[in-house]
Order: sequence, then C-alpha cells, then structure tokens
Amino acid sequence: MGQLLIILSVLFVLAFSASTVMKRFGIPGLIGEILVGVLVANVIIGDWSFLEDTLNVIRPGLDEHGVFADGNLYWSVIEALAQLGVIFLLFTVGLETKVKDLTSFGRTALLVAILGVVIPLILGYAVIMVWYGDIYVALFMGAAMVATSVGITAQVIRDMHLMSASESRIIIGAAVIDDILGIIVLTIVAGMAATGTIDITDVAEVVIISSIFVIAVIVLCSKGMPRIAGRLKAAADGKWMSKIDLFAVAVIICLVMSALAAEMRLAPIIGAFLAGMIFADHAHDHGLDKKLSTVTALLLPFFFVYVGLHIDVRLFDSELIILALIIIVLAIISKYIGCGLGTMISDRKKESSPNIVGIGMIPRGEVGIIVALIGVKMLLESNPYIIDVFAIVVLMSVVTTVIAPFVLSRAFKKKYGKRA
Amino acid sequence: MGQLLIILSVLFVLAFSASTVMKRFGIPGLIGEILVGVLVANVIIGDWSFLEDTLNVIRPGLDEHGVFADGNLYWSVIEALAQLGVIFLLFTVGLETKVKDLTSFGRTALLVAILGVVIPLILGYAVIMVWYGDIYVALFMGAAMVATSVGITAQVIRDMHLMSASESRIIIGAAVIDDILGIIVLTIVAGMAATGTIDITDVAEVVIISSIFVIAVIVLCSKGMPRIAGRLKAAADGKWMSKIDLFAVAVIICLVMSALAAEMRLAPIIGAFLAGMIFADHAHDHGLDKKLSTVTALLLPFFFVYVGLHIDVRLFDSELIILALIIIVLAIISKYIGCGLGTMISDRKKESSPNIVGIGMIPRGEVGIIVALIGVKMLLESNPYIIDVFAIVVLMSVVTTVIAPFVLSRAFKKKYGKRA
Repeated sequence: MGQLLIILSVLFVLAFSASTVMKRFGIPGLIGEILVGVLVANVIIGDWSFLEDTLNVIRPGLDEHGVFADGNLYWSVIEALAQLGVIFLLFTVGLETKVKDLTSFGRTALLVAILGVVIPLILGYAVIMVWYGDIYVALFMGAAMVATSVGITAQVIRDMHLMSASESRIIIGAAVIDDILGIIVLTIVAGMAATGTIDITDVAEVVIISSIFVIAVIVLCSKGMPRIAGRLKAAADGKWMSKIDLFAVAVIICLVMSALAAEMRLAPIIGAFLAGMIFADHAHDHGLDKKLSTVTALLLPFFFVYVGLHIDVRLFDSELIILALIIIVLAIISKYIGCGLGTMISDRKKESSPNIVGIGMIPRGEVGIIVALIGVKMLLESNPYIIDVFAIVVLMSVVTTVIAPFVLSRAFKKKYGKRA
Repeated sequence: MGQLLIILSVLFVLAFSASTVMKRFGIPGLIGEILVGVLVANVIIGDWSFLEDTLNVIRPGLDEHGVFADGNLYWSVIEALAQLGVIFLLFTVGLETKVKDLTSFGRTALLVAILGVVIPLILGYAVIMVWYGDIYVALFMGAAMVATSVGITAQVIRDMHLMSASESRIIIGAAVIDDILGIIVLTIVAGMAATGTIDITDVAEVVIISSIFVIAVIVLCSKGMPRIAGRLKAAADGKWMSKIDLFAVAVIICLVMSALAAEMRLAPIIGAFLAGMIFADHAHDHGLDKKLSTVTALLLPFFFVYVGLHIDVRLFDSELIILALIIIVLAIISKYIGCGLGTMISDRKKESSPNIVGIGMIPRGEVGIIVALIGVKMLLESNPYIIDVFAIVVLMSVVTTVIAPFVLSRAFKKKYGKRA
C-alpha cells in the first residue's frame, strides 16, 4: 500500500503541475498530463533513487515498444483508475448533451457529422494501407481520425459566450453524432480484428445493437425520463434519500450502462455517454454536474498520464516523423473539408459559416486517443507496429487539440466581432 | 475492462441498496455495506450464472479462512479503491478537526482519551492472551479496542444541534486524541509483529517519529498555515488557478502525507488525517469539504464491502460466539468506565456528565476495523486464527456503532431536554 501511494502521489503531483503550467499558457491541461506520462516512460532520472524505484515499479515490463507488461498489480490499479476516469469523463460529456440540442439543427448537424466521418475514415485508412499494408491497423487509424472531441470545442464556445450561435449548435450536435459513429466504427473494427475476418453478419449485428442502444436511450430521455426523474427528484428532496444519493444513483447508472455496453461488445464509453444523456435534463439537480466534475478531476489525470506512458519516443525515426506529418495534415484537412462541405450543402440560406464549422470539428482531443488505445490492446499481439501508429494518433490528437482553439476563436471573432 | 466494470457495478449497486435500507431504519449505512461483503463472500447464488461468474472472480482464492488470495488483478483494484476510500475518509475527519477544538477542553479531553485508551487496551490484550496465548494477536485486539470513531458520534451530536455542549467538545477532542494514540499503538504492534521481537528502541523510534509528525502538523496549522492558506486562497480566487485546483492541492497533500507516513512506517491513515487537519480552517473554501465528501461517497462503499469480504461466517462456532460476546461486553464497559472516570477526575466543577461522555466514546465504527484489517495483513502467515479475531473485531465495531447512537441521544435528551 505504501509503494502504491507513493506512485499515485508522484504521478498526481507531476500531472497537476504540468497541467497548471499548460493552462497558464492557454493550452489544454490534458497535454501537460500526457507529457508527464511520456516523461516518466522515457526519461530515467539519474541518482534520485527514491523516484527511480517508483519509476521502476510503474514501468516494469517496458519492452522495446514502450508497452507495459500486464499482470503487474500497481500497473493494473493505474489502468483501472485511468479507465474509470474516461468513463466518468464521457458521462460528464453526456450530461451536457440534451436530446433536443441534437435535433435543433438536426439535418445540418447530421450531414456535417457524416461527411466528417466518411472523409477522415477513408483518408486515414488509405494512408496506412499504403504505408503498412495492414487492413486492421489501417481501419483503426481511420476510426481514430473520425472522432471529434466535444469537450475541447465546447470549452472554447462556452468561454466566448457563443452557445446560441448557429455554428456552435451545429458543431456540438455534429461532434456528438461523430462520437457515436466513431465508436460504432471502432466496435466494428475491434470485432473484425478479434475474429480475423470481415464478417458482414458481425458488422450488421454491431450496427443493430448500437442503434437499438442509442434509440432506446433517446426514447427513454424524451418519454420515460421526465416521469422517472420527477419521482427520483421527489425522493431525493424528501427524507427517504439523502442529497448525496442522487449522485450514487447516477454513478450506478453510469457503471451499469458501461458494463452493459461491454457485455454487448460495444465500447464501455458509449454506455457511459448514453447514461450521461439520460441525466442531461437534471444535470444541475443537487449539484450532480459539480460532483461528477470533482470525480473526473481526481481520476482523469491518471488517464492522460497512462496514455503518455504508452509512448516510446525512440520510435520516432525520420520515417515515422514523415508519416506523422502526413497524418496530421490529413487529419486537419479532411475534417475541415468534410464538415465545411456538409455545412455548405445543407445550410442553403448560408446562415452558418462553413469555415467556422470546419475549424470547430478539427480537435480530436481525448476521443481519438481512447479509440487508439483500444486498438493497441486489440492488435498488439498480431501487429507490433500498432505502437508506432498509436504514437502518431496521440501526436495527431495533441496537435489538432492545440491548434483548433486558437484558430476557432479567431474565426468566431471575425464573424461575431467583440461579443466574444 | 468489461468484467471489472461488472464487478464494480454489482458491488456498488448492492452496497448502495443495503446502505439506503439501513439508513431508513436509523442504522449507519456502513453496516449495510459490510453485510453486502459478508453476503458476497459467503452466499453462493444458485443458478444465476452471470452473477456466479462475477462472484467467482472476486472471490478467487477464498481459502478455508475466508481470505482472498493476493495477486488477483480484480482483487487488487478493489483493494486499492477500498484503501483510497479510507484515506479520503480520514482526510475528511481531519478536515473537521480544528486544532483549537482539541485544546479548548484540552485537559479533560486528554485524561478521558488516555483512560479510554489504557483500560480497553489492557482488557482486550488480557482476554486474547488468556484465550489464545499469542502476544501479537492479543496486542492487535487491544489496539482495535482503543479507537473511538469520531465520525459516528459527531454525526449524532450534529443531528441534535449540541455541538457547543461541554460533553460534545470533550467527546470530539478525546476521540481525536484516541485515534492518534490508537494508530501509534497499532504502528508499534505492527513493528513488533514484523520483527518478531519487542524492541524498546523500535518502540521509542515509532513514538518519537509519530510525535514529531503530529507536533509538526499542529505547529504548521497554528503558525504557518494562516499565511500559506492566505496565498493559496488568493491564488485560487485569482486567474492563475481555477476553482477546481484547490481541491487538487488538497488531494496532493493528502496522498503525499499518506505516502510519507507509510515511508516512516506509520499507518498511511495517520498521514491522511493530519493532512485533513492542515486544511481544517479552510474546509469550506471553494466547497472543499463537499468535494471530498463526493469522492468519499464514491470510494468508501468499496472499503466496507471489502471488510465484509474478509468475514467467513462458518468461523462462528459456539466457542467463537462466546469469545465475541465477552469482547463486545468488555469493549462497551471498558470505554464507558475509562472515559467516565476521566471526566469525573478531571472535571471538578461537575459541569459535564461522565455518563454522556462514557457513552459517546463507545462506538468503534470504521477505526477499529481499519486497525484489525492491518493486523490481518501483518499476522496472517504466522497466526492463521487472526481471521477469527478479525471477525470478532468487525462484529464488535458493528455492535458498538449500532448501540451507541440510540443510547447517546437518550442521555443527551435527558440532560438537555427537548432542545435536541
């Protein structure tokens, strides 16, 4: 227990310091946390034997690909904290996603989302197929390029008080649809990688199960929830339940739906996200959103450090750097063109700027990384160079996440003036 | 990950339900959570294969003594969540303990605490020495009988709005001193069990280190903290840090001091408790106390379930039941007499009721269990019947925790009338 506490303390202190410094310079904190992971995994600190011991425990089986050996007890605890962190993150994102927000600019958002999925998917797939010739790794790269991080963009929009702008609502709606489509793509790819074949009935099964899951939640949100929530609120206000218990109910729904998603061979995060959507209309009851952001603040740093721990900087030789540059450029262009095009086609009155929507959809943030991490776990045994691809995806996610907020706030200011 | 999520969901749902039902009947929720652990460890649920699989994973190496095999990855995650839960619990208790509260009825509280430590320690030690003849097991029982649960008693006092009554302040002060003394006793016993000898220099070392640690924190609280806290608050209010970051700083101090305590061969919880005391004057800044109680609400149920998982009900034959009854009766009497006597001797004006103070010090709550759990880990290899003793300690803690609130509120009402 003592050793574990030291490890957790060291990681948390480093993550917090790095994230605070990053935020000071207007860069999202998660980038600092990833860098801490990279640092811990790659730099051996000379004579300071106390920290040296700690580092040796958390990087016990760091083999030539920078991957940790499973089966180490400390490592499995860090991994569990990291995964719980992502699950609560996606729950929080779901909590901010109301069904009616998705439908208000529905048609435009849907087209933006679909083109924003198809073009990056095809380009990502094509480049890796040409480079490595492996269909599964190529599909994972495609899936990782699909996802848009709602969190990063929503933060910029919120900071600028532009939540009601038409572009903002298109971006949020499309980003959410993107996430769902991205996770469906991921689930299909993972299923294919597991069986080793592209089985059409398998793909159909995943699509059908996902659709039923998503539709069931949307129906529950719009029809059943008002009634259930009314009772739950009455119970939480009354004597029967204490205030903290609404939070416990939310945690239960989040854990159960994540487990359910995993049982149905979907990614657990899709369950967590949908669970969040169920509570979206009641996010402020009894400070539910604040409580969840507290839990996320505690657990999420471990996730980004954990991501960084998977990156071996020695992998970046000149060949890989070239591939990384190609992927980054394509990641930016494909989203910008796909989503801009979607806006132009769908928004006939030209109320919304395709330029703003295109930029707003660029950041991949944590979602691209989550997808890639699942890919690493699935493919490592059969395709060791998935580690190279993973490092590229993390770099791509980081770069798009750093660039987009700057460019987006400029584009917004150009259209809406000093309001922002 | 899917399997782990199912396990965590099942445990959390069961713990939440049991705790809600218990609270409904005015019984502390933790008792419901312990019962869930006992249930999961002891009852095999017939045909429901889904849950059966889950149970088999969390009780993989349940040997004839009901103890889990270490080395199971899921088990180590549950254990880590449980231990983090206790650490945050003790941090929260520390957060409610101001140095000046300890000193306001200082002399009386100190005498109450000392007699409330010495008498249970001697009686617990004597009974187990007579019964088993093992000095280490006997010392652990003594240490487990020492601790008073501040949490349970404070809850009753708070519910009755009697925080300013002289008895209340004596009880809280003495319970805190009790906890510190109890943990020091535990550390000494653990050190002895580890080396196999009673080494006077060893004992002296632990006492000195503990004293320095405690005094350093008290000095820091009364001298250094006002200045540091002023700056920290300014930083947290300002642009440099966001609001959530004061919470992160608290988490860091809590983790680092727990790790530090462990490094110095003290129990990690004493570090967490002292870390909480450092923040006691700033518990309400930026909702720090609320954020920590959210984290505790999430993690602590896993601790009590984890405690219950260690109890094998088959151990309770007629002999063990007799021993359990003896221990329970002695646990009640020794605290009541020790603390009542302390009040009578010290409070010459007879302002405070020895009866109320005696009753208020009876509940052992989570602290007795924490002590016993450390004992199990230390002694299991050399003394397998520590498991029997552990089951008795948990039973003793549960019974004293259930009884005391009822009796205490009656005694308070008798003296202070309907004010309560």
